[in-house]
Amino acid sequence: MSTEDPTARRRGRRPAGQDTRAALLAAARAVFGENGYERATVRGIASRAGVDAAMVNHWFGGKEGLFAQAVLKLPFSPYELVTELRASPDDELGYRIVRTFLTRWDGAGGDQFQALIRSFTDHEVANSVLHSFFSGFFAELVSGIGVDREAFRTTLCASQIVGMGLVRYVAAFEPMANAEVETLVAAVGPTVQRYLTGTID
Amino acid sequence: MSTEDPTARRRGRRPAGQDTRAALLAAARAVFGENGYERATVRGIASRAGVDAAMVNHWFGGKEGLFAQAVLKLPFSPYELVTELRASPDDELGYRIVRTFLTRWDGAGGDQFQALIRSFTDHEVANSVLHSFFSGFFAELVSGIGVDREAFRTTLCASQIVGMGLVRYVAAFEPMANAEVETLVAAVGPTVQRYLTGTID
Repeated sequence: MSTEDPTARRRGRRPAGQDTRAALLAAARAVFGENGYERATVRGIASRAGVDAAMVNHWFGGKEGLFAQAVLKLPFSPYELVTELRASPDDELGYRIVRTFLTRWDGAGGDQFQALIRSFTDHEVANSVLHSFFSGFFAELVSGIGVDREAFRTTLCASQIVGMGLVRYVAAFEPMANAEVETLVAAVGPTVQRYLTGTID
Repeated sequence: MSTEDPTARRRGRRPAGQDTRAALLAAARAVFGENGYERATVRGIASRAGVDAAMVNHWFGGKEGLFAQAVLKLPFSPYELVTELRASPDDELGYRIVRTFLTRWDGAGGDQFQALIRSFTDHEVANSVLHSFFSGFFAELVSGIGVDREAFRTTLCASQIVGMGLVRYVAAFEPMANAEVETLVAAVGPTVQRYLTGTID
């Protein structure tokens, strides 16, 4: 990845700044759609967008991040969230995670969560997305806590958060579908908290 | 539903016994595939199979059960499980549920769980399947316990079990994908137990 300011370097010749970002998003939707997640390459997407491949890292942190924003249309980056959440005390993390995901997903109408689940119909993509999105996210959170069995804790957290999203947004299963965020924080928060810092055996 | 022995009544004229069952499964796959879950009718499926509509109740307990076996290829009926699980003490139910689902799904290679998730790409079907399979199942279990907020507890249980299946079978996310059943029972059992009988607010 280039250490230069890429928008400055490219200005005038190729799409700059937000234009680069938009061009990459459009190219990514096309290339992921045609080739699937695994066969799509960062180089191929950048080439279709007419920008340098380094722009993918610059704007999206890599292929997974690009997929998350282009295909899943996530309105937030899981990496930003880690920073935000790490500011909380360890014993409130589980509650804050549930609140944060629900608030973000609710704000976007639950649409990207549905896109996330639709991407799971492809086993390869499901694996990649869960790894990048949930596991990257939780692994980074968990690694700061100093507990045993970090990888297992990560998958436990992912299982509850994905399941909650699925029931609330995809199946729209009442009363979870329209429950208040704080009702779910109270019920599910202790689960995620235990998976992060509590006894799991 | 007929109270006669249907295999005896139909023998010689229409497919009998296991043949009826197989004919219904084949017809169901075709009709659910063409019309989706909601628009498919028991009458239409039975008609395509050349058997009486009462056979659907006889062999599958209704449309949901037929869908579960034909499309999801579940090797077991959730209704059988309720009876089996109700024999356990209430304070072991959460652990037994996790153990039972994992054992059944593992035994079938996780394939039907993948079919279950694929069916979620259709919002209507996702809703129907979750309702019939998980909610029917958990609602019946929960109603025998005598706790408050039965419907909410039902969706909480469904969210954890569906999420665990998704991470283990669809995303095949390690170390959950290959964890021992008892490792998951120890970690996830307390969650389902709390959702069934514990404090959720």
